[in-house]
Parts: sequence; structure tokens; C-alpha cells
Amino acid sequence: MIKVTVWNEFVHEKTDDNIKKIYPDGIHKVIADFLGKNDDMVIRTAVLGDPEHGLTDEVLNNTDVLIWWGHMCHHEVSDEVATKVKDHVLRGMGFIPLHSAHMCKPFMGLMGTSCTLKWRDGDRERMWCVDPGHPIAQGIPETFVLEPEEMYGEFFDIPKPDSIVFLSWFRGGEVFRSGCTFTRGYGRIFYFRPGHEANPSYYNEYVQKIITNAVRWACPTKKLAAITCPDVPPVECS
Amino acid sequence: MIKVTVWNEFVHEKTDDNIKKIYPDGIHKVIADFLGKNDDMVIRTAVLGDPEHGLTDEVLNNTDVLIWWGHMCHHEVSDEVATKVKDHVLRGMGFIPLHSAHMCKPFMGLMGTSCTLKWRDGDRERMWCVDPGHPIAQGIPETFVLEPEEMYGEFFDIPKPDSIVFLSWFRGGEVFRSGCTFTRGYGRIFYFRPGHEANPSYYNEYVQKIITNAVRWACPTKKLAAITCPDVPPVECS
Amino acid sequence: MIKVTVWNEFVHEKTDDNIKKIYPDGIHKVIADFLGKNDDMVIRTAVLGDPEHGLTDEVLNNTDVLIWWGHMCHHEVSDEVATKVKDHVLRGMGFIPLHSAHMCKPFMGLMGTSCTLKWRDGDRERMWCVDPGHPIAQGIPETFVLEPEEMYGEFFDIPKPDSIVFLSWFRGGEVFRSGCTFTRGYGRIFYFRPGHEANPSYYNEYVQKIITNAVRWACPTKKLAAITCPDVPPVECS
Amino acid sequence: MIKVTVWNEFVHEKTDDNIKKIYPDGIHKVIADFLGKNDDMVIRTAVLGDPEHGLTDEVLNNTDVLIWWGHMCHHEVSDEVATKVKDHVLRGMGFIPLHSAHMCKPFMGLMGTSCTLKWRDGDRERMWCVDPGHPIAQGIPETFVLEPEEMYGEFFDIPKPDSIVFLSWFRGGEVFRSGCTFTRGYGRIFYFRPGHEANPSYYNEYVQKIITNAVRWACPTKKLAAITCPDVPPVECS
Repeated sequence: MIKVTVWNEFVHEKTDDNIKKIYPDGIHKVIADFLGKNDDMVIRTAVLGDPEHGLTDEVLNNTDVLIWWGHMCHHEVSDEVATKVKDHVLRGMGFIPLHSAHMCKPFMGLMGTSCTLKWRDGDRERMWCVDPGHPIAQGIPETFVLEPEEMYGEFFDIPKPDSIVFLSWFRGGEVFRSGCTFTRGYGRIFYFRPGHEANPSYYNEYVQKIITNAVRWACPTKKLAAITCPDVPPVECS
Repeated sequence: MIKVTVWNEFVHEKTDDNIKKIYPDGIHKVIADFLGKNDDMVIRTAVLGDPEHGLTDEVLNNTDVLIWWGHMCHHEVSDEVATKVKDHVLRGMGFIPLHSAHMCKPFMGLMGTSCTLKWRDGDRERMWCVDPGHPIAQGIPETFVLEPEEMYGEFFDIPKPDSIVFLSWFRGGEVFRSGCTFTRGYGRIFYFRPGHEANPSYYNEYVQKIITNAVRWACPTKKLAAITCPDVPPVECS
Repeated sequence: MIKVTVWNEFVHEKTDDNIKKIYPDGIHKVIADFLGKNDDMVIRTAVLGDPEHGLTDEVLNNTDVLIWWGHMCHHEVSDEVATKVKDHVLRGMGFIPLHSAHMCKPFMGLMGTSCTLKWRDGDRERMWCVDPGHPIAQGIPETFVLEPEEMYGEFFDIPKPDSIVFLSWFRGGEVFRSGCTFTRGYGRIFYFRPGHEANPSYYNEYVQKIITNAVRWACPTKKLAAITCPDVPPVECS
Repeated sequence: MIKVTVWNEFVHEKTDDNIKKIYPDGIHKVIADFLGKNDDMVIRTAVLGDPEHGLTDEVLNNTDVLIWWGHMCHHEVSDEVATKVKDHVLRGMGFIPLHSAHMCKPFMGLMGTSCTLKWRDGDRERMWCVDPGHPIAQGIPETFVLEPEEMYGEFFDIPKPDSIVFLSWFRGGEVFRSGCTFTRGYGRIFYFRPGHEANPSYYNEYVQKIITNAVRWACPTKKLAAITCPDVPPVECS
């Protein structure tokens, strides 16, 4: 069983009526629901307002893959929890930051770059698969549309991804590296662009399938107990 | 001095009046002219119809960077010359295939993939720089437009580039990895998408600047005399 | 079930008594045997001497992952079969060339480089895992020894791998990128260095585990029916 | 002129007589001296004990490439200066961390990983070039020896480099990715392994040549004034 934790800042959905209509119980609930239909996954959720943001040692020690949605309140995530999440990724935990999580503390800390981009509310997104043999692309057509969606445009200041699985086209003229994989330490990371809080993208069948695939792909094969930098004796006699 | 050879199949420009109007002396002549304005480059040209396609041992031994434009007549390039070009790239010669050269014999041989893509004549291309610190992007704005241009769309079947310097957006809805670098052996390769024979893209100032930058970037630091696979004695005593 | 075909040129084992003692029924038989213990795999073998080298359309159409061992007789593999194998990889078939298969026709065709290296018979190899979270490294210790083994040394003329999973140290002073992954088209490729015909490396538990992991990792998520380069209408109205 | 700043923590050389004998005026002085022989470079130095560690806005604004040597006192570098250095790299400044700088604050911040490794004092290092066409490898033989040198061994917890230019072999049995390039934002980074404070490696002709090449390679083609994440209007009418 893959142990998945879906984390959401869960603020927009309580403060904005239009967003509440789309995600009445929060974005995390919709993601947890569609993932929960898979027999090989067990899902829990956690939100910003929980004690320790719901990401206690006990939770993180029992998480194979952490999904993260955040936007307005990146700065309210404590440095202690952000550092702990990053440490778990380096020790093997899979990590799937979604949409505006491109600037959440754990992702920025793992990337080392500014993670800045261009943006504009209300556009039409057409996604293209550019690594069609990648496990995350399994069952996804070569192109599909999300509308309305917020535009994210290049230059997206991230390190070179291991693989760019999806590129987006926007009607307003921009392009974006929308589905990107990274390896950091023992951990696998998939950044996936869609999911503006005011748009129902997490109900889209392909978005759901991509996130589902990504969970399986990011599940660790081993998780390190601790990171060390040891003084070692020779392994060969000389 | 960087020794540049501009190779062109030079067929469209002689057989089609509309194309002849744009490139009366051939695409190679326009490229050679704008490159020739640089004090650090010496340019020669070669075309399909020349003996050995103009790519004799003497020419290739005196070429630092080879630019290649071909389309209709890929199959008329002899296997012997194609193999020789590939060998020179592996030994260090820079190689810049343009536009429809994505399916020329030397590029396909160096990539090992089908190099297939989607295409459609007559679109509007907007190019975005996604590696703005790359030497090939020097002096290029974050975005610029070519219109009309032929559309090339994903999935473009190439190996993962070392760097994707430019991505293209097309009005018809497609995206494309338009400026891609590769290392093969000792040689540096830059594939650059624009330049349909019926469109005046090689007169565009940014296209010219990008090709000029690419020539400097691809110029070898050393060129190997021959490729070997030697049986060697130990370098350390044991 | 993962359909695996183990291909071997099967010449050394019949012509050299010392090698026959190690692999009396051929290297392919030993590999087929340890893979065959896995419930999720079904194994067949094919050798150079079979009609069409045992790689008929029927066999290739029913192969998810092809393992390849060859050395003395690379040139005896027909261009037709080599081209067909390459085409299947681009359409999604996994491919695992072993040891001296670094210069077999399908691998060289897929890489586009000379695939040359340094070599020397009879050394001590110590392998290190440098991508410990990679699925192919699952269950493998950080380092292990193979002795005796043939030395392969850098410069190994291959394109930049997607991931370097293993690096080798040799007593004679050399290093080598010994476990390398590549994506070509829809297909996943894992080159793995060990396995000189005169050394019993394919009986080593870690070598067996790595090849087993690689088969699962390389198994395609989809296989393309045919490769095309289509003229397409716009997907967005303009 | 390339404006180079050589930064050194400059502590070992004042507190340990053996190290003082090798680098009486500090490691930075030796590096500044050999770089200063190049007509295209102007060199300044800065050390931990200087006000703001010598890395004021005025200095960083006038630095094209920053070289960094640190070891014992990583924690004494202020977060403010470390953050400022990282910001300059993302805006284009070249950055060359040497040896034990693998765990300095700016490099760790740019990598996002733990940057841990294995180590052992007093070994024999043999370096191999595995990207011989790379500009940083220009004029360097395929292999050379440093002895004595400290051993650094894998697993080195860094993101996948853009290019691995050098691999090291150590007599004690380890291997290491010793010369690695990265792109972060607009900036180019080259991590180079050698240079234990108690060993005279910075007097080695090849080490000097590699650092000199790296300075030229890392020199920015443009430097961004500021990093932004703008809300933008469409560039195409729709």
C-alpha cells in the first residue's frame, strides 16, 4: 500500500464563496477522494491549520508520497516543518507540489532557485505530452484542454528537470513546462502545473490520472533513516 | 578564426519561383552573408550538387562548425558523406542542423531516434527563451515572433536535449522544443527550428543572432584525430 | 506478465572450453533462469544462429523487454534485424544491452555515438551506486565487488545518460559509468557493464538483482503501433 | 575583462603551521595569483574576517565569477551574505565552489540537497575526463594524478549535474563526481573537488588550468537586475 498524504493550505475554500462552490470541502478532499479509489493507496489529509500543519513526525514517517497545494499562505508554513518535509524528501519520500505550490517553502528549498514565472488569471490551457513513454504519461492522450485555467508562462526559474513530461500552450501566447520530474537525494519529485483554486481542474479525468500515475512513480523504493557525511576507512587495501 | 561551412541542398530555390524570390542565391548564401560580417569567422558554402556534396575530406578537416539545411533531398545525400559528417561531429566539429534538417541523415544518425514531429504550413510562431543565461540566448529578447512560419509540433522524437534554449508557441495550438543543444562525442550540436524555405526567417535579426551565437558556442575546443577503442595497460600498479 | 526475450550471440560458450565451463548452456540460459524465478515475468531466449537471429516480427511484437549480449559477432547481425530492434525500442520496447553489447548494432544505432571505451582483461571491479533512489538500485548495497572482471574505462563515448545509476572503480586505476539509463522515443534503455564471457558475473546475486530491477523499470507503459510524421490541421481555431 | 572575486574563509592557513607552509598568504592568494596572469581577467580577494565577509553589494555587483573556498567556518558566514550570493548567482553571476565548499551555505542553498559525501584524509586521487569536448576540459589530459589528496566518495548527494566533466578514482577504492556543472537561474556553477587545505593541489598545473577554464565558462552573458514573478497581459490577442 502506498501511503499518501494530501496537504492543502485550505484557506481560499473557506473565505471565497466562488471557490467554496467548486471545492466545498477543500481541494485536498477532492484529491483524496479520487486517489482513494485506488486499491494500492491509503490516503490521509493534512491542512495548514492543524497542529504542526498536520505534518508531525508520526505522519511524515508514515508517508510515502506527499502532495502539496498552497498559495496565499506559503509564509505561514513554519520553517521547522518546511525543513522537515525537505529532509524527508531527501531521504526518499515522494513529493508532488501542485500549481501555486511552485513557491511553497519545501519546493523552493529543494530547487534552490527563485521558482518565479509569469501568470495571468483566466486563460485556455492546452497540455501536450512530450515524454509519452514516461510512467506519468500512461493513459494520457497526446493533448488535452483545461479551460478556464490560470496562465503560467516562461521563464520558469527551475533547475533543468530530469524529464519534462508535459508542456502547456496558452491562448494568450505563452508556453510553460507544466509537468516536470526531479530527483533530490533519494526522493522523486513531480511538479504539476494545473489547479488554480477558482477552476475545477482537479475534477478533470486526465489531471486525476496524471496525479495518480505520479503517486505510483514517486513512491520510494527505499527510505534512508538519516543523512550522514562520514569519515570512512578504505574499502580496498593499498 | 572560426571556420564555418554552410551546407544547403539548394533545390527549392531553383525550382520554385516564390522561393527563388526570397532566397535568389539560396538559403546558404543568406546565412553565409550574415555570418560573414563577424570578424572572428570565415565562411564557405557547399551544396548537394557539388562533387561529394562539397564535403570533401579537405573541407571537413577545415571546418569548425557545419550548418546544414536540407528538406526534399535528404535521401540523395550519400551514406558515405553522411557517415563522414557524423564522424567529424563525434571528433569535435560543431553541427547546426536547421529546420527540416531534423530528418537529414547526419542528424538522425547522431540522435538515434526517428526525429519525427507534426507539421503544417503557414502559421504564426512565437518563440520563448527558457534558458536565458545560455550563451546561445545572448542578446535575444524573452519572446519574439516569426510569421508566417511552418508549424512543427510535439511529440518531437529526439533524445533529451542537454539544454532546451527555446520553446515555440503556434497559433494553431501546438508547442515545440525549437532550440535544443546536444553533446555527441567531442562535438556540440544545436538544432534550431525556424527557416521554412517559403518564409524569410533567415532575414530576421533574432534568428541571425541566434545562429551567430550558436556558431561560437559550437566551435570545438579540440578535435580528435581518430576514434579508438584500445586495450590498455593499468595506469596504477596493483 | 512482463514478456522478456534474452538474446545472446552464443559463440564463445561453444568454442572456448574455459567459457563453456562457466556458461555450459550459454549466457542467455543463466539469465533466463534467474529471471524466470519471478512470477511477473515470462522468458524466452533467442540466439544469433536462429533464423532471423530468433528476432522475428512475431517475437518482437511479443517482447516487452529485450536483453542483449554480443561481442565477437556484432557484424554478423543483419542490418534488417538491427533496424527492426531499434524501431521496436523507439515504439516502446525496453532494451538492456549488457557488457560488450556496448558496440552491438542496435545500441550504437540508438546512441548515435561511437560507444568506444578503454578495456583490459582481468581486473577487480568495485561498483558504486550513485543514484540510490532509482528503481534499478532497489535492494543493492552502496558498493559491491566483481573479481575477476574485464576493465572498461573512460572516456566512454555515449550521450549523456538520463541517469547514471552505477559507477565502477577498477584496481588498475580506471573509472567507468557502468549503469546508465536512456530514453529513446517511447522506449527505456539500461546499459549495464558487467559480464565478460570468461567471468561468472551473471551468477552474482547483485548483478542478477540489478538486471531483474531493470526489466521491471524498462517494461513499457504503452507501445506505439507505428512512427509517423504527419501534416496536421490546427487544434485551436485562430 | 572578467571580474573575478576569490573568497576564502582563511582560517586554517593562520592556525595550522603545516598548512601555513603550503599557503602562507592563504589559498585565495595562490588562486588569485595564477588567475591574475590572464590578460582577460581582473582579480580581487575577500575573506571571512572582512566586514560583510568582503562581499558587499558593491563587490558582488562588480563580480562576474565568484570562487569560494570554505571548510571549518561555514556556519560563521551570515545568512544575509549567503542569501545575497545565491541571489546574484540566480541573476547570472558565475559560481565556482571548491573542495569542502560542497557544504558552504550558498552552494547548499543552490543545490537544495544535503551535499553530503564520504571522506578520508590522505589518499591518492586520479582524475579522469568524461566530457572531453567541454570548454572546462580544454587542454587537460585524459587523466592526471593528485597525491596526497583527501578522498571524497559517493554517494555525493547533489542534483543531477548538467555535465559531469571529471570523475575521480581513489586508491582506497572510492569514486567521485569531481567536476560538475549546474545551471541555476541565469547563473552557471562549476563544483570542483580538489584542494584539501593540507595538500598543495592549487599549485598543480592542471588544477590551475581547469579553474581558469571554468572562470571563462561561468562568466555571464547577461546579469538580471532583479527577479520578478509578474502578472502579465496576453501577448497574443485571442
